[in-house]
Amino acid sequence: MRDERLCKQLTFVIEIDRLKDVLRQTYLMNGTRRENDAEHSWHISLMAVLLSEYADDEEIDILRVVRMLLVHDLVEIDAGDTFAYDEVGYRDKAQRENAAAERIFALLPGDQAGEFRGLWEEFEARKSPDSRFAAAMDLLQPVLHNYETKGVTWKKYGITLPQVMRRIAPIREGSEALWEYASTLVDDAVGRGYLDG
Amino acid sequence: MRDERLCKQLTFVIEIDRLKDVLRQTYLMNGTRRENDAEHSWHISLMAVLLSEYADDEEIDILRVVRMLLVHDLVEIDAGDTFAYDEVGYRDKAQRENAAAERIFALLPGDQAGEFRGLWEEFEARKSPDSRFAAAMDLLQPVLHNYETKGVTWKKYGITLPQVMRRIAPIREGSEALWEYASTLVDDAVGRGYLDG
Repeated sequence: MRDERLCKQLTFVIEIDRLKDVLRQTYLMNGTRRENDAEHSWHISLMAVLLSEYADDEEIDILRVVRMLLVHDLVEIDAGDTFAYDEVGYRDKAQRENAAAERIFALLPGDQAGEFRGLWEEFEARKSPDSRFAAAMDLLQPVLHNYETKGVTWKKYGITLPQVMRRIAPIREGSEALWEYASTLVDDAVGRGYLDG
Repeated sequence: MRDERLCKQLTFVIEIDRLKDVLRQTYLMNGTRRENDAEHSWHISLMAVLLSEYADDEEIDILRVVRMLLVHDLVEIDAGDTFAYDEVGYRDKAQRENAAAERIFALLPGDQAGEFRGLWEEFEARKSPDSRFAAAMDLLQPVLHNYETKGVTWKKYGITLPQVMRRIAPIREGSEALWEYASTLVDDAVGRGYLDG
């Protein structure tokens, strides 16, 4: 029985290697190529560890936040990355991602399948303090990437200030300090011509 | 003061984006390209969460293990990845990596610089239960990658069974069960012609 359990867990470990091939619209900070979901997940997990002091809710459990961030994009192995500003893609995003969750988490033993799927659903719902702080990391990171690349993704798709402000607003529900920083950075990006006002 | 602290932390967040460009000798499981350090760090952090039940020491602190794994390769931004079987490269590995740690962690506020550097040194020393389990993840993952790619890296460099067994031996210090699994998989790889006996 133990072997069967370990076998399921390692099948999952092998399956999720595919996350390294799911490309986001965000570019690396040196502008050379698009970032993939695995790199992004690493980056924001480390950000959560580093920036936990800015969480407004002192009760956050940073291990839960990190676990959430490590798994938050796994459904994109099947569903693909839906660009934050793709309104058409967002129409069936939930449906595509639910089907993906159904398949991918079910590779795990039952207890872990339920636990990981629960973490993903909690992240998506953004209602708990842990998921709000996790979402703040997920939304702050691409702002840094866009700023460092002089707005490469914003320009490529003609994204404007109101769109970005709407997109990053939930940072405030996880961290007032990080939201202030992000919104100042976005204003500065407009001033520098990285983003249309 | 708070702004200065946050500024240092975000400078670090931006600097470590470069980990996404540090290539390992390991290939993605679909064999299409070499894996980078950021992807690898995500993969083994998630493995640690998933496989913690196999740690022989019940006292391990999984948050510390994950924090260790998230930062364990950062020194390679300056020092580069030293291939596990590169004896020449290993001669000055410690010196190169210490210089890198000196620069990279110093970007952080003092308390976090000390904490992160401490985690990295603990990982390298492999003496604590947390670091032994972290090392087991770091050593197990490339075995899975080599097996799934029919030994592409092993073959490319003419690596043999005794070299692999020496390399993965420390898995046993973190997890007897995972060491048994890994050594069985390596034996099987020899049987299938993925690795020279």
